[in-house]
Amino acid sequence: MKQFILLVLACVIPATAHAQTWQVPTAAERCPSKWGADDTRGSANHMKPESVLKATRLIKTGEVIEIGQVLNAAMPFFGTRRFDVTTKRTFMNDGSNRRGSNEELVVGEMGQIGTQFDGFAHQTHEGSLYNCVKLDDIATRNGFTKFGIEKVGSLITRGVLIDVAALKGVEMLPDAYEITPADLQQALARQKLTLQPGDAVLIHTGWSRLWAKDNARYVKSCPGIGVAAAAWLAKQDPMLVGADNWPVEVAPNPDTQLSLPVHQFMLVVSGIHLLENLKLDELAAERVHEFALVVQPLKMQGFTGSTVAPIAIR
Amino acid sequence: MKQFILLVLACVIPATAHAQTWQVPTAAERCPSKWGADDTRGSANHMKPESVLKATRLIKTGEVIEIGQVLNAAMPFFGTRRFDVTTKRTFMNDGSNRRGSNEELVVGEMGQIGTQFDGFAHQTHEGSLYNCVKLDDIATRNGFTKFGIEKVGSLITRGVLIDVAALKGVEMLPDAYEITPADLQQALARQKLTLQPGDAVLIHTGWSRLWAKDNARYVKSCPGIGVAAAAWLAKQDPMLVGADNWPVEVAPNPDTQLSLPVHQFMLVVSGIHLLENLKLDELAAERVHEFALVVQPLKMQGFTGSTVAPIAIR
Amino acid sequence: MKQFILLVLACVIPATAHAQTWQVPTAAERCPSKWGADDTRGSANHMKPESVLKATRLIKTGEVIEIGQVLNAAMPFFGTRRFDVTTKRTFMNDGSNRRGSNEELVVGEMGQIGTQFDGFAHQTHEGSLYNCVKLDDIATRNGFTKFGIEKVGSLITRGVLIDVAALKGVEMLPDAYEITPADLQQALARQKLTLQPGDAVLIHTGWSRLWAKDNARYVKSCPGIGVAAAAWLAKQDPMLVGADNWPVEVAPNPDTQLSLPVHQFMLVVSGIHLLENLKLDELAAERVHEFALVVQPLKMQGFTGSTVAPIAIR
Amino acid sequence: MKQFILLVLACVIPATAHAQTWQVPTAAERCPSKWGADDTRGSANHMKPESVLKATRLIKTGEVIEIGQVLNAAMPFFGTRRFDVTTKRTFMNDGSNRRGSNEELVVGEMGQIGTQFDGFAHQTHEGSLYNCVKLDDIATRNGFTKFGIEKVGSLITRGVLIDVAALKGVEMLPDAYEITPADLQQALARQKLTLQPGDAVLIHTGWSRLWAKDNARYVKSCPGIGVAAAAWLAKQDPMLVGADNWPVEVAPNPDTQLSLPVHQFMLVVSGIHLLENLKLDELAAERVHEFALVVQPLKMQGFTGSTVAPIAIR
Repeated sequence: MKQFILLVLACVIPATAHAQTWQVPTAAERCPSKWGADDTRGSANHMKPESVLKATRLIKTGEVIEIGQVLNAAMPFFGTRRFDVTTKRTFMNDGSNRRGSNEELVVGEMGQIGTQFDGFAHQTHEGSLYNCVKLDDIATRNGFTKFGIEKVGSLITRGVLIDVAALKGVEMLPDAYEITPADLQQALARQKLTLQPGDAVLIHTGWSRLWAKDNARYVKSCPGIGVAAAAWLAKQDPMLVGADNWPVEVAPNPDTQLSLPVHQFMLVVSGIHLLENLKLDELAAERVHEFALVVQPLKMQGFTGSTVAPIAIR
Repeated sequence: MKQFILLVLACVIPATAHAQTWQVPTAAERCPSKWGADDTRGSANHMKPESVLKATRLIKTGEVIEIGQVLNAAMPFFGTRRFDVTTKRTFMNDGSNRRGSNEELVVGEMGQIGTQFDGFAHQTHEGSLYNCVKLDDIATRNGFTKFGIEKVGSLITRGVLIDVAALKGVEMLPDAYEITPADLQQALARQKLTLQPGDAVLIHTGWSRLWAKDNARYVKSCPGIGVAAAAWLAKQDPMLVGADNWPVEVAPNPDTQLSLPVHQFMLVVSGIHLLENLKLDELAAERVHEFALVVQPLKMQGFTGSTVAPIAIR
Repeated sequence: MKQFILLVLACVIPATAHAQTWQVPTAAERCPSKWGADDTRGSANHMKPESVLKATRLIKTGEVIEIGQVLNAAMPFFGTRRFDVTTKRTFMNDGSNRRGSNEELVVGEMGQIGTQFDGFAHQTHEGSLYNCVKLDDIATRNGFTKFGIEKVGSLITRGVLIDVAALKGVEMLPDAYEITPADLQQALARQKLTLQPGDAVLIHTGWSRLWAKDNARYVKSCPGIGVAAAAWLAKQDPMLVGADNWPVEVAPNPDTQLSLPVHQFMLVVSGIHLLENLKLDELAAERVHEFALVVQPLKMQGFTGSTVAPIAIR
Repeated sequence: MKQFILLVLACVIPATAHAQTWQVPTAAERCPSKWGADDTRGSANHMKPESVLKATRLIKTGEVIEIGQVLNAAMPFFGTRRFDVTTKRTFMNDGSNRRGSNEELVVGEMGQIGTQFDGFAHQTHEGSLYNCVKLDDIATRNGFTKFGIEKVGSLITRGVLIDVAALKGVEMLPDAYEITPADLQQALARQKLTLQPGDAVLIHTGWSRLWAKDNARYVKSCPGIGVAAAAWLAKQDPMLVGADNWPVEVAPNPDTQLSLPVHQFMLVVSGIHLLENLKLDELAAERVHEFALVVQPLKMQGFTGSTVAPIAIR
């Protein structure tokens, strides 16, 4: 294991110190996006009746496997985010039927906690979003007038699990391990699967074993795809890319000059949705590598993302 | 129309004033539930691989029709509930890639706003819930230790729209109109459909035409099923019952002594989930009466319900 | 009364349309402030043992008159601000003494609601604050690293009520009436009082008669000081300037090109604290024009202001 | 020091195990209160012009000493209470004067965090409050219809610091040390002071040295008055009793069967306000034992308490 880590580090440390390994493409290079200058849906354009039918055909037994984590105060939070729940004073309604009611008040970043789906208002490069839309043109005190998560709708498509942990023969990839294009390709070959345009690609790192058990370690770093793997995935033209870690990508990036570059590459440059903090242990354990993926982002107007409770069906 | 209302009123006003039209069954009468004394899933017990396969077989074109409302400050709120969104100060991360991040803080009753799914911790009779569980035994300051909505999971089943508004030849049923068993039966006959155990039964009243247009009227009263219709529906053994109004049931109840008795009948007595504030206009307009219903309650631990974004697929 | 308004309008409408009546002084003109380039306290520098002793000497009877409004959901709110209170589920503690506890959760802009005290992090001109400090240098996701309201401390000083409503012989000045330097001077002369450096100057407009009675009108406009009166007051070197309206100043400004210029003049240019939404009816009715003023801003770290409950003592 | 602790423990451990050292007086014994059956002000009845004048006469130098802690995320919180601050997205107003505004959203138990003043809606015995008012008669979903903290008003009176830490020759009393009537009396004698009816009695334990430094220890236990000392203090007829710890009283109580009995004794039985989490180090260090105390509870309608920023003036 130690040898394996050293090998990895040897690969990712840049030969020349301070040479930046990735730069955000210029506006001229990245805009308009491949979906057109006015496009706001990005990779969700793949969601069509055909993708639903393709997913439906993968359903053989009807078994549902949940891939969303439970939302509670014990889960890991990034930065100052929170999910605080207050049970309101129980109240009795008027009426001879003595009906009592209960409900709870939530305070939290409902777009960015738990298992969550990222939209295009979430990330910028120099105040510029997907398709070079300017942040100041769409930001209001109560949300964003473009790219709101309520526009995405339910996504149903073929899901493919790429089990990189299994490929490496470990239960959990090491902290800050960068998944490479070769890792993805070898894992797919091992699983005898190929990606198709419009797939939901889910990457198993094993990192969710730390969820609610060692939250400090969970959010401090994580294994995940690097820029090269992200670029290769983007070429496969997926509907979304997800993982069982907090940012999908490796963190911190091996190039320490870069702050979560895959977030920018996927959301700002490529218009590809991310699905974070998945719970993929059951899919991995049962070797469910191909399935129907169903995820329903909440219709929260103008949001940067949505906490979700996705499932795989086989 | 006026004649129609008068006719209805003639039916529902009890002959003898002050005679209570419905009483909550005693603990001995209603417990244990038909699913067993320890059951906590109620009608969600119908969710099995078979219900998924049955729903899947109804998918012909792959077309998705959204039946959830958009969550924003313009929607109607019941009582003091709210959905307040604050865009946080935009922040720039460290790093040469100049990555900006956006997110929003939500304050709201996330279990009980917008299109929402009701669990069994939501309602009581004299401090007693489904299967005669005592409220004080399961209530904590931060949720409920039993019946939490995180246990329900995604529901996928045959969905049936019962279009009562169409049966009556109106776009919207009158305020406080009580839907009767005969209404439901005649609407089904007109649609040439019968209910099956495990169905998701959605009732179209047309009331959502007021959504975000006349919120005061939307929440003041509504057409919906009365106790008799609820009892008939419960006998059909559904997975859930929903409607395009705020409480599924008629409000106020024609028996003014009763406070939302169908809530108690469904959630406390019968263990049947409710799905409120649906947007059914598109299904009704296109006469989509049978479909695959997919709803993913959030996995919010210990909650009384969950805001959702369900879909119908045909 | 009508004549009076016309007269006023004649005074305040600029002779030349579109000629801007006030411009924010340049950085070179306004910085450093008169308290020095590194000063963060502004007018609160007047708070010293001497001001306490001066105030103490004004206490003759010991009678306390409250000049703060009650905080509740019925009060007027500016924009999207709120004060939402949720009584938490009552809980019983362990122990043979059967001790129950109650508490409430608040969601609100506690720095900027109700009767409230404004600090210097609240307002900017082109991203520049008091003493030309740059907003981006002191703003964090959870407050401001400079000018935080926790640094101000309790203020105790001579308070002077300037009753402009009484001067004009009305209970309430008209909507959007601009109080002029002459109004202030005549009112003081009528009250046989002069201002002294370090005074808390409170201006009675009568506008708080609308508080919780006609909130829509209360926040839509208000009578208050214009730029000229603000400039005259600043020359008198007060510890703070307050009024019984929401922005102290006239709103909208008669020069419709300007957005609350007195806020900028007082907080950004002059470093003078504001005290808004006061309840001055009792002081006015009893003709208490000189008194000890006591106000205790909360010690909320990094805040732009603080809701307060000030008093006058005579 | 060790000897000292052992001595103390010898005093407070009851001779007979399981014998309860204190019982809540019956309703007949404790109601009506000494202020009358309809009284809602309790010890705040001492707040009169005379108490203001008495306090004013103690002001010699005009020096203000702050005895409130700063409110921030680093402070200790009891249980699930919080004080979360979100800086809102900075916004630019319309207008040629380029006026920017900043404000922050707070989520927190504003009645029960930081240095805070306790009202009579905060505590119960078997659902009964001060003057035997029933909780269910006054509790609503958004506060309490009686005993709301907005009714208390500013309190100004003679303040007396009882420095028990100095009496014992320590900087901080030991964890869970119970302050006895003898301790109070000896400390007063040492300071050559006697209590008068209507005083604000503040007890220095030194415990606030842990504030924001060792929060876990700060809230786990604390030195403070026991039931006997509380009873002796109540006989002295104070306006309020405060301390530099979180519950004023010793915690846990030496009688482990009792849950914060002094809270019940003071608030439910005796109608005496409490002032918690004070910062008394400066008063103690400068031996300021007698002073004018000024505290302004916020006028939050129907609240159980209020966070405050009190001062001592000498």
